[in-house]
Amino acid sequence: MGVPLLKHLQDSVLSGVNPDLASERLTASFSVEKLTARLDGGAEHTRMRRAIVEAIESDPAFSRENQYFQSQNERYEAAVRRAVHLQKKMREMGWTENGPEIKYIYRWLSGDIAFLLHRVFMRSISVLGSDKQVAKWIPLATEHQIIGSYAQTELGHGTYLQGLETTAVFDIATQEFLLNTPKISAMKWWPGDMGRSATHTVVFAQLYVHGKCYGVHPFIVQIRSLQDHSPRPGVTVGDIGPKMNFEHTDNGYLMLQNVRVPRENMLSRFCEVQPDGTYVRWGSQKINYFTMTTVRISILSDEVILPLMKACTIAIRYSAVRRQSKLKPGEQEAKILDYQTQQQKLLPQLAAAYAFHFINIYLHELFDRGYQEIQGRNFDSLPELHAFSSGFKAMVTQYCTSGVEICLRACGGHGYSLLSGLPSLYTRVLASCIYEGENTVLFLQTARNAILLLITHKSEYETSACGLEYLSKFFQFSRLLSSSAAKLQHLIQSGAEKHEAWNQCTVQLVKAAQAHCHYITVKIFVETVEKLDNKAGIQKVMKHLCDLFALHGIFSNAGDFLYDGYLSGAQMDLVTASYLDLLAVIRMDAVPLVDAFDFTDKSLNSALGSYDGQVYQRLYEWAQKSPTNQQVSPAYGKYLKPLLQNRLSKL
Amino acid sequence: MGVPLLKHLQDSVLSGVNPDLASERLTASFSVEKLTARLDGGAEHTRMRRAIVEAIESDPAFSRENQYFQSQNERYEAAVRRAVHLQKKMREMGWTENGPEIKYIYRWLSGDIAFLLHRVFMRSISVLGSDKQVAKWIPLATEHQIIGSYAQTELGHGTYLQGLETTAVFDIATQEFLLNTPKISAMKWWPGDMGRSATHTVVFAQLYVHGKCYGVHPFIVQIRSLQDHSPRPGVTVGDIGPKMNFEHTDNGYLMLQNVRVPRENMLSRFCEVQPDGTYVRWGSQKINYFTMTTVRISILSDEVILPLMKACTIAIRYSAVRRQSKLKPGEQEAKILDYQTQQQKLLPQLAAAYAFHFINIYLHELFDRGYQEIQGRNFDSLPELHAFSSGFKAMVTQYCTSGVEICLRACGGHGYSLLSGLPSLYTRVLASCIYEGENTVLFLQTARNAILLLITHKSEYETSACGLEYLSKFFQFSRLLSSSAAKLQHLIQSGAEKHEAWNQCTVQLVKAAQAHCHYITVKIFVETVEKLDNKAGIQKVMKHLCDLFALHGIFSNAGDFLYDGYLSGAQMDLVTASYLDLLAVIRMDAVPLVDAFDFTDKSLNSALGSYDGQVYQRLYEWAQKSPTNQQVSPAYGKYLKPLLQNRLSKL
Repeated sequence: MGVPLLKHLQDSVLSGVNPDLASERLTASFSVEKLTARLDGGAEHTRMRRAIVEAIESDPAFSRENQYFQSQNERYEAAVRRAVHLQKKMREMGWTENGPEIKYIYRWLSGDIAFLLHRVFMRSISVLGSDKQVAKWIPLATEHQIIGSYAQTELGHGTYLQGLETTAVFDIATQEFLLNTPKISAMKWWPGDMGRSATHTVVFAQLYVHGKCYGVHPFIVQIRSLQDHSPRPGVTVGDIGPKMNFEHTDNGYLMLQNVRVPRENMLSRFCEVQPDGTYVRWGSQKINYFTMTTVRISILSDEVILPLMKACTIAIRYSAVRRQSKLKPGEQEAKILDYQTQQQKLLPQLAAAYAFHFINIYLHELFDRGYQEIQGRNFDSLPELHAFSSGFKAMVTQYCTSGVEICLRACGGHGYSLLSGLPSLYTRVLASCIYEGENTVLFLQTARNAILLLITHKSEYETSACGLEYLSKFFQFSRLLSSSAAKLQHLIQSGAEKHEAWNQCTVQLVKAAQAHCHYITVKIFVETVEKLDNKAGIQKVMKHLCDLFALHGIFSNAGDFLYDGYLSGAQMDLVTASYLDLLAVIRMDAVPLVDAFDFTDKSLNSALGSYDGQVYQRLYEWAQKSPTNQQVSPAYGKYLKPLLQNRLSKL
Repeated sequence: MGVPLLKHLQDSVLSGVNPDLASERLTASFSVEKLTARLDGGAEHTRMRRAIVEAIESDPAFSRENQYFQSQNERYEAAVRRAVHLQKKMREMGWTENGPEIKYIYRWLSGDIAFLLHRVFMRSISVLGSDKQVAKWIPLATEHQIIGSYAQTELGHGTYLQGLETTAVFDIATQEFLLNTPKISAMKWWPGDMGRSATHTVVFAQLYVHGKCYGVHPFIVQIRSLQDHSPRPGVTVGDIGPKMNFEHTDNGYLMLQNVRVPRENMLSRFCEVQPDGTYVRWGSQKINYFTMTTVRISILSDEVILPLMKACTIAIRYSAVRRQSKLKPGEQEAKILDYQTQQQKLLPQLAAAYAFHFINIYLHELFDRGYQEIQGRNFDSLPELHAFSSGFKAMVTQYCTSGVEICLRACGGHGYSLLSGLPSLYTRVLASCIYEGENTVLFLQTARNAILLLITHKSEYETSACGLEYLSKFFQFSRLLSSSAAKLQHLIQSGAEKHEAWNQCTVQLVKAAQAHCHYITVKIFVETVEKLDNKAGIQKVMKHLCDLFALHGIFSNAGDFLYDGYLSGAQMDLVTASYLDLLAVIRMDAVPLVDAFDFTDKSLNSALGSYDGQVYQRLYEWAQKSPTNQQVSPAYGKYLKPLLQNRLSKL
């Protein structure tokens, strides 16, 4: 160990950093600060982000210190407090809802705040409302004179929106819509901010005019009094109870019995019921789902990829500090990060976190373009955007959920303690597989779109950005898809009904859609790496991560590549060997690579993942704060004492 | 629909069973009652189990009705109450700790009770204690005059027991051991029943006599006063705080500072420190770990396989009731169980639940024989039992955890509600992957054992029960293992150090060990099915499940079979086709197959999984009981009201 190294480690001890973690930072092959700037989109963004994080973290009102000890009621109250305080803070700091700061604010808050559905309420009015409706409702909502929610899902109906049962019947006499929950399965169920907070909500209901059903439309409905917050007449509303996470969110239920809203409350940017009951439409019916389509993409960054980045940070730092068993007889116990099996758990997740960071940027650019077209009433890109948002939402949420779980399990028992931060990251990201469209259904929508293109526009498809020509070069999507298509055709020719044939191909179609999205992710990662500057060693380390992500994909789906001899057994041996070799290479940069995500300790809120690696000390300190240690349990006096004193028979 | 069918459905409506679920029970190809009896090991066992369940469920003291709404403190208190009440109940009913009833009692309680580690405390004294020690401590523990725990894991040391840092130094002068926690990483951490309940614990510590270390040994240590329950001098003890589940268990921490225990408190069935400090051993040092080895097998049934059976019951019943989207245009929305993708999620888990039920019986028989040999001081079977317990604990916990998660996700949003029962099943079974030995380490121990056999006793191994000859007939374990062995040999011949070569093979060795255990599970399933009587259609439906389990294994690990041409692409197509066809066949029996597990509604404690399928009604009723609906949130007065009334600036 050279003198500078020794000096650095001594400094670390003085600064309180665990030497086992400090030593990891000396061997970085690249500049952590430069990579952070690259992830932020430039050093000036990094500066702004840090200034905002500093402003928030120095404000005790935003503290999450006791989060792991709080009940559902306490979590809800704290989330409302933070949401209200945030409004004040934003005015003080001069931050605005449309300003560049907002994404950093919400990134730090990690969704642990109320009124997130209020923001979806506003977004749906902005997208689906007429200019007049926007002018009326958006200022009220912005000033929080009303609190909104978004009531789409029903107790018996989720992803399949056409099945919604809530009705909105137009009454010409009064120029009102009459909203009803015809049976229990039609109750709105799950909307956030609705159980205890919202005064208004956008209700999705089947529109009836003159007895004819026009399908699902959105209506603004007031559900609680603005004076005393009591439910409005005909409204039954409450909280759906405990969930696996989101204790801070008042997910609600809503039953409507003959609730009337004026004709003007149907959102009418793209269609309208006129006073005489005439139904007019100016755009695709599908536009009603566009809010959901954009939400699917907008959640990816903060709700899905961020948890994976945090989980990687926690698990990799902990793995550099935790020692267990001996790799070499006679030496001290080894860092668990030095075990190939630990590397194989964590490093592919790290590579995926980077891969998804880049695909997320790509998707946002795609959607920004699409949104502008739609604003100009050009709906051509809707099917493609829908297919993209469906497949990537499903693929990224699934991958990240599995990745966070792997990180949790890779930390052994301590990962299972809430104090590690990992359980709440897991239970939270898991929800993303379910909300905003069930993942299997979403994959099948992507597959349906691809099959349609394959069958009806084969040549066009081949020249598109994600055409078969490219696909066949790398991933097995093309085979999976075309073999599904062949099976489909064969079944239909053998006399199966179309829908039954489709059902019999769905397991394979889901695989094809997954491969499709995986392939595009690799492709975008490769293109991103090619464009990187190699100053400061960044391109090289990103190239390694990109290779690892691609090789892991092949290693984990070997059957698809070996099936038709696309790869031989010998080639697969090479893939495996390269993959395993790469683990050892990336392991050297593992801690710097998570440092580059630049999470503060308060943002991670993890006893295992802090920058200083003082894991055991922190676990012990935090445990002592637990309410289970601050209360003499009534169980002693009531049960244990009589038992121990052998008065069992008198109990 | 024939008249009897119509009649049955009408009866169901009258009895309150959802017709969509009732209809599933009409098409069973086998006798549910007979299968239940087979699973119980005979109809007389079924009768006994039901009588016990009835006795427990009719006693409100055991109710788990409010479980999902309780805080950690409330859960702990309830668990202690139940444990104390159980003692009373057992006396009343004439049930004894060694009687046939005990397994049904604990099966019903599903671990939601205190003093489970007290039972491990007793078991370790029974196994590791001398006759004198057994005679002294077991009656005290049986009568609950003391409450025990089992303190092995430390903050910095888990699976690698040799690394434990707690010390026990023999003091000849006083004939005592002096126990110490030399640093923070040596604190005992995680022992159940220790944080707030236990008066005594078995502490595993490095034994030192005359300055020489003899390795880890178990010592009985009193940690709390029997009078007032205060920590004994030199003892720091408390609760480790919130976890992902096990809120009812007071997992604890323990620091010892110069705590003295008499020489007689070292458990000495197999070794002893004599008064003059002479260390004597009568058996293998490994016997100290035997408690853990047996615990690994004993948890499988109730803590691992049972949660998967419950999750399958909940998810499959719900999938027969939940309707979404249309399979056939013009028809009503389809049961989600009719979708191939849903079948592919749930039915392999159902097959696995049966497979593991049978392997569990096999393992218990194996261990009962081994235990008897050890009682007779024959330790020959220890390495094999260790390898078996390691590999199967890892394989079954991993599979069941993943299976429960699949069931949870397959229920969409409602699966994510605690009221479904699925989140707590998941967070609980997940812990089993971590406790009693980290799974990767365990797989590697199995692999090490297999490699040793392969290298040193090739011929002997080939003739053993799980020999290579059998293996090569079915699963790819043989190739995975021998290619790992070849790589290992190659690396060593190329000059790599042995330990480094081993590390570089571990990813592949873990795969080999998994395949090994999977193969044996298939083998035992096949043998069990062959022995079944085919009266009442049971053999046939079990044969289908066995085939599904085997085919799913190949389908999911296609690469291992295609790699060296063991299966061709065309054969893999056949595997896939058979696998998918079988899904549709088993789907017809899916509900009867979970009914056969015979869980009561109270035992499932799930709004989605009840026998009557009244899912939506129950979700709504249960949600209304949530504390979030019973309290007017302070958040309204404090934050919402001022905000809504536009007094933002005054906040």
